[in-house]
Amino acid sequence: MPQPPARTLFLVSDGTGITAETLAQALLSQFEDLRVREVHLPFVDSEEKMDRVLERIAAAHARDGVCPIVVATVLDPELRARLSTGEALYLDLLGPFLQRLADALGVTPTGATGRAHGQRDPGRYLRRIDAIHYTLAADDGLALDTLGEADVVLLGVSRVGKTPTSLYLAIHHGLRSANYPLTEEDFTRGDLPPALLARRSRLHGLTIDPERLHEIRERRRPGSDYASLARCRDEVRHAQALFRRHRIPVLDTTRRSIEEIAAAIVYGRAS
Amino acid sequence: MPQPPARTLFLVSDGTGITAETLAQALLSQFEDLRVREVHLPFVDSEEKMDRVLERIAAAHARDGVCPIVVATVLDPELRARLSTGEALYLDLLGPFLQRLADALGVTPTGATGRAHGQRDPGRYLRRIDAIHYTLAADDGLALDTLGEADVVLLGVSRVGKTPTSLYLAIHHGLRSANYPLTEEDFTRGDLPPALLARRSRLHGLTIDPERLHEIRERRRPGSDYASLARCRDEVRHAQALFRRHRIPVLDTTRRSIEEIAAAIVYGRAS
Repeated sequence: MPQPPARTLFLVSDGTGITAETLAQALLSQFEDLRVREVHLPFVDSEEKMDRVLERIAAAHARDGVCPIVVATVLDPELRARLSTGEALYLDLLGPFLQRLADALGVTPTGATGRAHGQRDPGRYLRRIDAIHYTLAADDGLALDTLGEADVVLLGVSRVGKTPTSLYLAIHHGLRSANYPLTEEDFTRGDLPPALLARRSRLHGLTIDPERLHEIRERRRPGSDYASLARCRDEVRHAQALFRRHRIPVLDTTRRSIEEIAAAIVYGRAS
Repeated sequence: MPQPPARTLFLVSDGTGITAETLAQALLSQFEDLRVREVHLPFVDSEEKMDRVLERIAAAHARDGVCPIVVATVLDPELRARLSTGEALYLDLLGPFLQRLADALGVTPTGATGRAHGQRDPGRYLRRIDAIHYTLAADDGLALDTLGEADVVLLGVSRVGKTPTSLYLAIHHGLRSANYPLTEEDFTRGDLPPALLARRSRLHGLTIDPERLHEIRERRRPGSDYASLARCRDEVRHAQALFRRHRIPVLDTTRRSIEEIAAAIVYGRAS
């Protein structure tokens, strides 16, 4: 069967385009064979810029021979109307919902841009920045003495996903996230350091399939004892025994993305 | 005027709920006085779980005395239909768009869940994890010898926003992001280190309003010379002179969020 022609997908926003990008990803994940060329066009916040976008949409249509898809989050009503005239399958992620909310609430949307992902609440924003700096300082077991300030403490063996998850929790959720690597030392001692046990309600254990851990460690130190399957199996088994013993909730990171692990920690989900 | 009663906003998803959260934020930013109580319900991936969600929606309706708002990204068509029966203003972020895409493309959505923010492409996923680890190692000028591996190098004075932006670029965009703090040493030397100048096409300067910088530094070291307004003014002026001299593109972080700075770096925008 001949391949369908590649389409251009325009992500158009008068802000960062994060919302459009996120929703487009969810939509496209439902169409397996769809080949698209993504064009990100954020900060389209004037009529002149929107007119250039319309020209690019028309050019893509002519070049591809198929209608482009436009996924848009444009808050300004006039710019939104202008974009709707483009030669594209136009998916307006805001207009219809704003209208329905306005009707139900009996109020008019402000039309103000740059608020969705801007520094809306400066106090909250500074706390988030502080959370990022705390999390950096508390990476890799460096903060046993400041654990009292942590909102979340992640435990697990090397390369199970502690650091990326901690950083995501800080950046996205504004949580002060410490993490502690479980090593030979803990397994020999047969228990967790007292500083950790004192914060038990904030502890989250991360585990992983030993085969997958082996793969990940091989990328870092090929052929090493550290990366060997036997060592990976051993460490994961010891870590799980510690989690069970202290009834620490555990998440398996093998097939989960950072976003999924973070959401499960923040909103709760059994592994 | 009496305050309107608080409504409950349910963010319902059979995945992480990130998409629902992001779009709800954009929608609500348009209704200034709307008071909502947010309830995040991710991973609602079975009929039983959906029935419990419907009970919570009904309970919120009874308690609040006003209709709850449901912002939903549920990929499974049957669960979506079930949710639509709830006693709420139901904003389905996927159904209508999936239908329009399916009609236009002549294909049927797969209905598969957990793909939007999962580890869809394992290779890409590992590169993103690598980018995070590189970025951590390359924070705060620690990687002048491995700058050749950086996709992006951020320059600026202390607390201008380099570290949070670098981490966001790594986590969200999978970019290996180094950063280099401009200090007295660089200003006295009157130029940038040769290792940086060799990567000029990847350099991005960050600047900030000195008053704002003063505020931020005061949180860190109150009353110090480091935090003084005079010192902040001086450093920002020197940094801008270096950016101009080497024609390094500059972004002002004063009123921009991390997301906005990152989007401007990745997709381009004059300051």
